[in-house]
Amino acid sequence: MVEKGSYVLKARTFDIETGKDIVVLNEDEAHDMDMIIGDRVSLKNGEKRCTAIVDSSDTLVKRGEIGLFSDTSCGIGAKRGDMIEVSITSNPASIEIIKKKMDGGSLGDEEIKTVIDEIMENKLSETELASFVTSLYIRGLSNDETVYLTNAIVGSGSILDLGVHPVVDKHCSGGVAGNRTTMILVPIIAAAGLYIPKTSARSITSPAGTADTMEVLAPVTFKLDEMKNVVLKTHGCIVWGGAMDLAAADDKLIRIRNSMRLDPKGVLLASILAKKKSVGAEYVVIDIPVGRGAKIEDTRIANGLAKDFLEIGKKLNMKVECYITVGNGPIGNGIGPALEARDVLRVLQGDGPADLTEKSLVLAGALLELCGKVEKGKGYAVATDILKSGKALEKMREIIEAQGGNPKVKVDDIPIGNFKAEVKSEKEGRIHHVDNRIISRIARTAGAPKSKGAGVYMHVKQGDKVKVGDVLFDIIAESETKLTMALELSRTMEAVEMQKVILEKYE
Amino acid sequence: MVEKGSYVLKARTFDIETGKDIVVLNEDEAHDMDMIIGDRVSLKNGEKRCTAIVDSSDTLVKRGEIGLFSDTSCGIGAKRGDMIEVSITSNPASIEIIKKKMDGGSLGDEEIKTVIDEIMENKLSETELASFVTSLYIRGLSNDETVYLTNAIVGSGSILDLGVHPVVDKHCSGGVAGNRTTMILVPIIAAAGLYIPKTSARSITSPAGTADTMEVLAPVTFKLDEMKNVVLKTHGCIVWGGAMDLAAADDKLIRIRNSMRLDPKGVLLASILAKKKSVGAEYVVIDIPVGRGAKIEDTRIANGLAKDFLEIGKKLNMKVECYITVGNGPIGNGIGPALEARDVLRVLQGDGPADLTEKSLVLAGALLELCGKVEKGKGYAVATDILKSGKALEKMREIIEAQGGNPKVKVDDIPIGNFKAEVKSEKEGRIHHVDNRIISRIARTAGAPKSKGAGVYMHVKQGDKVKVGDVLFDIIAESETKLTMALELSRTMEAVEMQKVILEKYE
Repeated sequence: MVEKGSYVLKARTFDIETGKDIVVLNEDEAHDMDMIIGDRVSLKNGEKRCTAIVDSSDTLVKRGEIGLFSDTSCGIGAKRGDMIEVSITSNPASIEIIKKKMDGGSLGDEEIKTVIDEIMENKLSETELASFVTSLYIRGLSNDETVYLTNAIVGSGSILDLGVHPVVDKHCSGGVAGNRTTMILVPIIAAAGLYIPKTSARSITSPAGTADTMEVLAPVTFKLDEMKNVVLKTHGCIVWGGAMDLAAADDKLIRIRNSMRLDPKGVLLASILAKKKSVGAEYVVIDIPVGRGAKIEDTRIANGLAKDFLEIGKKLNMKVECYITVGNGPIGNGIGPALEARDVLRVLQGDGPADLTEKSLVLAGALLELCGKVEKGKGYAVATDILKSGKALEKMREIIEAQGGNPKVKVDDIPIGNFKAEVKSEKEGRIHHVDNRIISRIARTAGAPKSKGAGVYMHVKQGDKVKVGDVLFDIIAESETKLTMALELSRTMEAVEMQKVILEKYE
Repeated sequence: MVEKGSYVLKARTFDIETGKDIVVLNEDEAHDMDMIIGDRVSLKNGEKRCTAIVDSSDTLVKRGEIGLFSDTSCGIGAKRGDMIEVSITSNPASIEIIKKKMDGGSLGDEEIKTVIDEIMENKLSETELASFVTSLYIRGLSNDETVYLTNAIVGSGSILDLGVHPVVDKHCSGGVAGNRTTMILVPIIAAAGLYIPKTSARSITSPAGTADTMEVLAPVTFKLDEMKNVVLKTHGCIVWGGAMDLAAADDKLIRIRNSMRLDPKGVLLASILAKKKSVGAEYVVIDIPVGRGAKIEDTRIANGLAKDFLEIGKKLNMKVECYITVGNGPIGNGIGPALEARDVLRVLQGDGPADLTEKSLVLAGALLELCGKVEKGKGYAVATDILKSGKALEKMREIIEAQGGNPKVKVDDIPIGNFKAEVKSEKEGRIHHVDNRIISRIARTAGAPKSKGAGVYMHVKQGDKVKVGDVLFDIIAESETKLTMALELSRTMEAVEMQKVILEKYE
């Protein structure tokens, strides 16, 4: 290969961080230099060097100039007016690899690692990243490719090494309102003597993520070392996964997936398993709620996902078990951070919602059995003992304290919104369906998760018999406006459906 | 749908044009507002409104601020410190349409038009555009989709309406060094009384585009009205297509295609035919060179492309004819703008390279027959008459004058580089192959097309017999350095191959 020429251009700096190493060349001049958008150039300022991606503009920089954003100008210590040596350099290896995937090829371990490495080094443009995710979506990933991707994502960030065993974890594929089992399962498991370094997400589209709910009781933002200390001290934690550098590449992939609302299955699997792998989990229980109004409505899709989790988990040396659970309605009564935190405390005290209690015990029991701590068939009983004895509550208070919260917190200490409206039944009969999506929309409209005290409090469950005027649910908000908006929404959508035959009519 | 809330943020302006309507929100605050990257917001500053795409940053703007680039701040006349009302708005319709294509669906006329319209309105993010092009590449386009895309691209820009008939055009799929038939065909056709409003490209990766070569003789950058005047006066023109607003969306698609080196066939077809359609062409001859070292090496691919051009042309109400031509070596002697311009003048004078003369006459004859100007079988003879009579040269001088060049220009008036090296044969025998790609690389390394006078001058063609020491080609440059670089390259690559049996050996 012949080197294309090198050029000397005058730096024009822009005090803006773009998160990418981009330089802007004058459009006509870039043409003269044989450079096109997306080409990689190597920059030299005195002895400092870096590489960057070419963009061009006919207004931003004049001929003879090169536009540098903070990311790049800091990299080579360039100030306005510095003379920068620019030469074209080879494009990132990822481009050919992405092309291969586009053309239907299978990617190997090294190829996927190369793409992830180059993503982490900011070597890929937004366009290339989008092409990558789109190709993964259209072409799909084999289980081997998913394993490679998981390992590459794990390798892209920090890893929690507790130096103890067994380390266990759980995951829920989501979509069920109020389903805060993690906050009950973690103290049970930790009280049983296992280590469970649980990281959780904040809400993206739901009324509360586990991190949002835990934050009502204690801080959730920690550095990796701090998290390690909490877990070694109490055997568990419930922290926000976003503040640590675990599975770092995942954030960059999620950014693109969110932007195009794409969720390629292999990427989803890799994303979840990489998070487990990077905290050193050896045994993982996965909860896949299925049902009308849940994230996954189709049992066959849930079954396929479960099989993939098992197979890929095995290849990653993790013992994984999946539970397809009933997900066609909210679990627990509260929906929204504070309301859910109250439910959690009540369950730990022994007087919480029965469905949330039951589901948490089933999952905790499964995890106790999976890791061999408890013999087969006895997990549920052991978990129930730990809960009933008050050890789980005690453990939760230890964790809350270790994370910097008030360990003596009582249910009534948790503030909820001052504005409340009751939504009542207009019919008599049996409740056929409570819709997760609609209830979540109402809770979000009331202000959750931003307003911690806002949300919905369910008074009924599927199967309950109600009379006209019975309260179906409360809407709780921290402002009158939000309450009115949520109430209006509840009038336009059927959150609670009475028994019927026909679901929908097309005409 | 419930409106998510609206917020008032303080403008922080950045004096940078991004070509996109992007606003930057503080990352945490965007989360609190339920906004994710790629969401569309409507902005209000006093009475001025616009929509923009959300990006987020944890460093660029603080909570309570909104970062506005020039594109957006100009749109709503915002100055630093202005209070901007921001509310989330519905996402562009294109997102669902792109998703449909990703999932393997076929897009209809209105759907494709919607995507192109939203691209033109800068409503799509770079990520979405890349997803669109990647999906078109992987899923392919049906001929109907290609027709819709062509019409949408035509509709995205200006249209040349000459008000005369017949309007004819030609296109070459490219890849053959020195192949400047357009500059010979256009004056023949114009002299025959037809109208040929020819727009051409500048070089992207070749040593010269037609626009680069014509620019040696006359200016090529015109507004649409100016081009119209030239054509109505002289019946023809040879101008750069990039300065007018013809097929405007194509530039945006090309930007993405170049960046990922993607050329989805349907997009290529639409791109070419939209350019013809937008100048009002009724009859189009397409030259598809095929052969080793050409852009298309495989005859079957060329055949498929030809059939697609015909079928899609018909649906667009254009009479299209395709010619698969011999493309396995350079045509003409000069390669590089000035050297090619010299060849063109020589052909028009009647003493140019035989192969360039012959090919130009064949294509001009075909076009004369296609539009019915000349009866079948007589096109070549009529074209030859026009060339031999000197009418084509006279017409070319008229066009040069109308475009603002020197109509009296002679071959020797065209300056070529002062630095020359001869590349000589080291063997005796018959020439088996002259490689377009390698010759083009050498010409570019010598400085073409940026140095108009640089390039390669071929002394031999495939089939010629040479002795040791015979000159194969000259390398011509405008600087000694470039000459040395090009000469070194010519030593490492076999531009001219002697007769042999084995092409390559794998071991």
